[in-house]
Amino acid sequence: MAPTSSQRDSLSVARQLAAQFASTAIERDRRGGTPKHERDLIRKSGLLALSIPTELGGWGAPWSEVMAVVRTFARVDGSLAHVFGFQHLMLATARLFGQREQWQPLLAQTAERAWFWGNALNPLDARTSLRREGSALSISGQKSFCSGSPDSDMLIVSALRPPETRLAIVAIPTSRAGITVHADWDNMGQRQTDSGSVTFEDVVIHPHELLDVPGPLGSTFASLRPCIAQLILANVYLGLAEGALEQAKVYTLSSRRAWLGSGVASASEDPYVLHRYGDMWVGLEAARALTDRAGLSLSEAWARGDELTPEQRGNTALAIATAKVSTTRDVSSQVFDVMGARATTAGAGLDRFWRNLRTHTLHDPVDYKLRELGRHALSGELPTPSFYS
Amino acid sequence: MAPTSSQRDSLSVARQLAAQFASTAIERDRRGGTPKHERDLIRKSGLLALSIPTELGGWGAPWSEVMAVVRTFARVDGSLAHVFGFQHLMLATARLFGQREQWQPLLAQTAERAWFWGNALNPLDARTSLRREGSALSISGQKSFCSGSPDSDMLIVSALRPPETRLAIVAIPTSRAGITVHADWDNMGQRQTDSGSVTFEDVVIHPHELLDVPGPLGSTFASLRPCIAQLILANVYLGLAEGALEQAKVYTLSSRRAWLGSGVASASEDPYVLHRYGDMWVGLEAARALTDRAGLSLSEAWARGDELTPEQRGNTALAIATAKVSTTRDVSSQVFDVMGARATTAGAGLDRFWRNLRTHTLHDPVDYKLRELGRHALSGELPTPSFYS
Amino acid sequence: MAPTSSQRDSLSVARQLAAQFASTAIERDRRGGTPKHERDLIRKSGLLALSIPTELGGWGAPWSEVMAVVRTFARVDGSLAHVFGFQHLMLATARLFGQREQWQPLLAQTAERAWFWGNALNPLDARTSLRREGSALSISGQKSFCSGSPDSDMLIVSALRPPETRLAIVAIPTSRAGITVHADWDNMGQRQTDSGSVTFEDVVIHPHELLDVPGPLGSTFASLRPCIAQLILANVYLGLAEGALEQAKVYTLSSRRAWLGSGVASASEDPYVLHRYGDMWVGLEAARALTDRAGLSLSEAWARGDELTPEQRGNTALAIATAKVSTTRDVSSQVFDVMGARATTAGAGLDRFWRNLRTHTLHDPVDYKLRELGRHALSGELPTPSFYS
Amino acid sequence: MAPTSSQRDSLSVARQLAAQFASTAIERDRRGGTPKHERDLIRKSGLLALSIPTELGGWGAPWSEVMAVVRTFARVDGSLAHVFGFQHLMLATARLFGQREQWQPLLAQTAERAWFWGNALNPLDARTSLRREGSALSISGQKSFCSGSPDSDMLIVSALRPPETRLAIVAIPTSRAGITVHADWDNMGQRQTDSGSVTFEDVVIHPHELLDVPGPLGSTFASLRPCIAQLILANVYLGLAEGALEQAKVYTLSSRRAWLGSGVASASEDPYVLHRYGDMWVGLEAARALTDRAGLSLSEAWARGDELTPEQRGNTALAIATAKVSTTRDVSSQVFDVMGARATTAGAGLDRFWRNLRTHTLHDPVDYKLRELGRHALSGELPTPSFYS
Repeated sequence: MAPTSSQRDSLSVARQLAAQFASTAIERDRRGGTPKHERDLIRKSGLLALSIPTELGGWGAPWSEVMAVVRTFARVDGSLAHVFGFQHLMLATARLFGQREQWQPLLAQTAERAWFWGNALNPLDARTSLRREGSALSISGQKSFCSGSPDSDMLIVSALRPPETRLAIVAIPTSRAGITVHADWDNMGQRQTDSGSVTFEDVVIHPHELLDVPGPLGSTFASLRPCIAQLILANVYLGLAEGALEQAKVYTLSSRRAWLGSGVASASEDPYVLHRYGDMWVGLEAARALTDRAGLSLSEAWARGDELTPEQRGNTALAIATAKVSTTRDVSSQVFDVMGARATTAGAGLDRFWRNLRTHTLHDPVDYKLRELGRHALSGELPTPSFYS
Repeated sequence: MAPTSSQRDSLSVARQLAAQFASTAIERDRRGGTPKHERDLIRKSGLLALSIPTELGGWGAPWSEVMAVVRTFARVDGSLAHVFGFQHLMLATARLFGQREQWQPLLAQTAERAWFWGNALNPLDARTSLRREGSALSISGQKSFCSGSPDSDMLIVSALRPPETRLAIVAIPTSRAGITVHADWDNMGQRQTDSGSVTFEDVVIHPHELLDVPGPLGSTFASLRPCIAQLILANVYLGLAEGALEQAKVYTLSSRRAWLGSGVASASEDPYVLHRYGDMWVGLEAARALTDRAGLSLSEAWARGDELTPEQRGNTALAIATAKVSTTRDVSSQVFDVMGARATTAGAGLDRFWRNLRTHTLHDPVDYKLRELGRHALSGELPTPSFYS
Repeated sequence: MAPTSSQRDSLSVARQLAAQFASTAIERDRRGGTPKHERDLIRKSGLLALSIPTELGGWGAPWSEVMAVVRTFARVDGSLAHVFGFQHLMLATARLFGQREQWQPLLAQTAERAWFWGNALNPLDARTSLRREGSALSISGQKSFCSGSPDSDMLIVSALRPPETRLAIVAIPTSRAGITVHADWDNMGQRQTDSGSVTFEDVVIHPHELLDVPGPLGSTFASLRPCIAQLILANVYLGLAEGALEQAKVYTLSSRRAWLGSGVASASEDPYVLHRYGDMWVGLEAARALTDRAGLSLSEAWARGDELTPEQRGNTALAIATAKVSTTRDVSSQVFDVMGARATTAGAGLDRFWRNLRTHTLHDPVDYKLRELGRHALSGELPTPSFYS
Repeated sequence: MAPTSSQRDSLSVARQLAAQFASTAIERDRRGGTPKHERDLIRKSGLLALSIPTELGGWGAPWSEVMAVVRTFARVDGSLAHVFGFQHLMLATARLFGQREQWQPLLAQTAERAWFWGNALNPLDARTSLRREGSALSISGQKSFCSGSPDSDMLIVSALRPPETRLAIVAIPTSRAGITVHADWDNMGQRQTDSGSVTFEDVVIHPHELLDVPGPLGSTFASLRPCIAQLILANVYLGLAEGALEQAKVYTLSSRRAWLGSGVASASEDPYVLHRYGDMWVGLEAARALTDRAGLSLSEAWARGDELTPEQRGNTALAIATAKVSTTRDVSSQVFDVMGARATTAGAGLDRFWRNLRTHTLHDPVDYKLRELGRHALSGELPTPSFYS
């Protein structure tokens, strides 16, 4: 699916998709499950190739642009924003952990066939292992939190391989024999990320599917992977917060009445309503400035490729961690104070912003992000690369 | 239904009921609608007569005890806590706004027949009016936010009666011809309070059903009504917060794992988890101390009856407003940080505490409560009685 | 100095003293040094015997009353509040760590001669040691943070005595040969607590001066000492906050003008000024409720004497820790927002509340108090007695 | 004083000056009064001409660079930062409110003679008036908050001129007959800004000294003046906060000991100390990002000159207001929690950051800034130009 030049204004494409997502977001939040129709709209849009180099048939967008699309989706649908962001994280995983002869065809085929990738890389879940018998490789076990695996074309999977401590990471088709994707995700928020479980029973792995050189965090450049993951999260959080505020404005302007004894004629003149909007505005502006800055920093670090120094990587990681903390402090609960009691009607679905954010901001503890940033602030130390920093 | 003496330990009865409510709370939250089975359990328990004087067949409990029962219910079910609290607010409304020959039989019959009362008194909804033709009275119109009206036996209804600015308040059977109770409450939280709408079409009102002497806020004593309403809200909020923390503890102790790099063996030794528990503890202890104090203040003010002075009423109102603000600052979102990502599974239903609180804390704006308290702190002024202060 | 019965209304005495302290508080804050005149006023008032049992010539006040006097002083002078509170902590130290034949004469003489006690018990400063040669005891070394030692009549001193890990605690006259009290306290806040250093050179210690049975934290009852210390701190913090708010009110009412564009006629009608007052009010009301409750809990625990159980002690410690955290979150910086720019003139001395609080709230880290409370909230553990909990 | 090219690296010059200011900052804070020596160092550095166009003999720096110098000074000395920033605000006032033939010679002479300007423009102080008798002009009256007027060479003065509502603004030599500058500034913070009072007695004003075309806020471009003032404040606040954090780091690393029971070997490993540093870091990073962005926005708006549209001016004003609110939420009190009790010694002078910030952040109420931002967030309105927005 070669994108026409008109499609290459990714933000414009994203906004059109977002408008479609918005029209069914409340209903789909209630229903949960796989947003098959919307996933197919993304497939058709060409945006699955957004981060793929143009020479491999992609759109060649820098990370800052990918993040802007993630945020655009998140304003109306946190689930689709998440799986879309992780599409590009999966592609980056192939690129960063594997060799050119591995990732080139994967990226080219993704661009050509609009493959949607799912995530079965979960370092904290130790139930899946890689077995080697002679030259034959296979994986068996279970994985939880496998976002986007139903309806996916390809999977990135992590597996233990004792006695090595390093994880094995493989890129395989979801349709491979022995793989069962379970539709068992039923959560209070992010209800259409399909972050359920996957079972692997003696799944054959071909040698070229093992992403082992340099492998997980195997080089400074490869250690950008968690940076990408964390910045996708930050952009999902920020987009959700922006979406919540956008809805709140509509509600205050259209439906809120001045409070008895407020002395003002309309809620939009209420001193406390305005003060709360001001407070939320300052918080969002700060989050936007920090998140945009982090996006540029990531784009630059990525462009350096194998020339990337540990210090440059460290500074990018700091910028991203700072953005992540700032976007975690969200407005999704406070918006109700400017909307009033009638905004709690189930039909408005306005609690979904809080449910999505609260679910997603638990991905890894913000307290440890703050510890990491504090260590830098105090002693100048850069974050040690890990799957979460 | 004369309560046996063993039933008169109201907190013990309440705890037994709460245990039953808890077992179905998640499922009922999902379903919404009228909790008929649980309402009947309350009817059978005798607690509908909790605040009714013993000489009229009730349990004779002071307000502090009624509030303790409300809080006990709220720990597991915010909706039942609300309608139970409002049962006693409705009885108090009859008592405060009406004459002895009006409220005595109403209270006695409530105790005898376990009448459940619903609330159609809503001063901000001006769509219902009282019409007087000769000596015949009737009401027509609509009311929203009529908590507990489905499955109720009696209703308290407010209506305009131009040119008088004072509201007409009546106590009538829900089964009265012309009354239609709609099952149209579908909210993000407090999903089983049945706070939907009621339609009145030429509903006949008998003179003794009009609570007009002293009438709404018609005396210092009568102006305790909003105090009772506000303190019920505070106790619902506090109980919900206590319930959220209780669930969080179970979850942290049973399911949370130590974070990678935390340097501790279990989540229950994690310095940040403990710090957050400490922070929530101090907030809840403060809310408990202030809410208990307000309960005693209300009990004393009530006991003074028509001897109640405006200053005593004012000090009670201040104590209650202080409690209300302190209970509005809740922990229901923060608890997730001590539970971690797995606690967001829909089956655990742990978002319901936030949904319930967020819905209910919008009853009237906390900012105006703070303005009222600030005016007192600065100038010593006591709150002017209104339906919200 | 036998107090006359009219003096025994300790709060009334304290208020009269406080009025005198207030008239010179700004000037004395600037000057620093020893408030000799004010210390002598306290001596004359009889309040140095406030906590001493009546049978030993004292006023026999429970701890809740001592704390009320501390708070009364702190509203106008944090330094005098601190040394006055520590007077009674020193007396309690003799009572709790020593034997009846030791503390009885010490308390009786204190009541008779109006002895002012200074504090040289500092577990974190390991530079002072007790030496035993044959039956002769002596101490040598240095101590920092010796509040109230200049102009004191008696000192409580801690010293190491290797190889024992337990501290030696002695009660000796300040005039004892070998003791040099340095006037070297010059701090940003609490400027008249005289918390400077003391040097000990071969200071002879008589056996009856060693408080060793049960000794420091040597019994459940003895482990109330840190509870008393912590609650004195909480009351100093609370009094300072109350004093700051009191001054702010005077300033807002007398001097603040309505802000340009506020739409109100006077600052005392400004919605944001009122909101901030309301916010501070709720915080102070919470702190007051928790601190008063802790005072009653301590009074009861003290009254139990050697019957005090570890659980009772633990619950008192929790109540006090909760109060301490709540009083640490102070309003001394926020008050300026309701007073405006002109309140920063040096002559008004209004920064002293913040300087006093900020200095004093660093006594021991509030984060570890929160950890301790969090451990209780999560697991039900009671605080392990130490010199700080 | 033509700056040599080596001096034109203004940040390098500023850093050298700041190092000199730092060495005496604590002592000068104690003393108050006019920092004559340091003002003369600024004079000699050439930085008084920093914002003056090169064609008039200045350094031609954009506002973003001026702000960076202000912030550099504020890290060590809030008072010098303020008067230095206001030097350039005074020059901008001449430029914005006057005609080319007025401001060109003023700026050229300032560059040539290193004139230091003082501020006697205070719209809230209505005690000074301009009198016109025939063609003769004079001003009489008093002004408060005249920062930097002692030791100044020139003054900008505002005066009423009834019946016109527009202020008269004049630029006159401080040495003009009838002007008395009082050394009466004695404040809790910003102690060397010399923000005392000035008396004018029949001070002759020459027609070319009246800045009346376009006059105060007399054009869109002219209405950039309050933007400059507000952004100077934001940079002073931010620099002070950065300075406080810098000092805190030195103190934690060199002097703080691990707390009893923390389980870590040094304070720089303490989880709570690190968390607090992380929290302060995120706040400062946000403030830096927003303040830098505002500086660029102002530089661009300024460069547009009379082409500046109300919308561009409005967006700049919003960016600056956002920066100002974010820098008002400072860390100067929290830093003590990471330093501990010993950091409160008067000799360390570490309370001056809080005293400076607390004094300066009251310049105009942050609550009304939030209202203004909230109005924009809610309704898209741009701030109405006034002397404070």
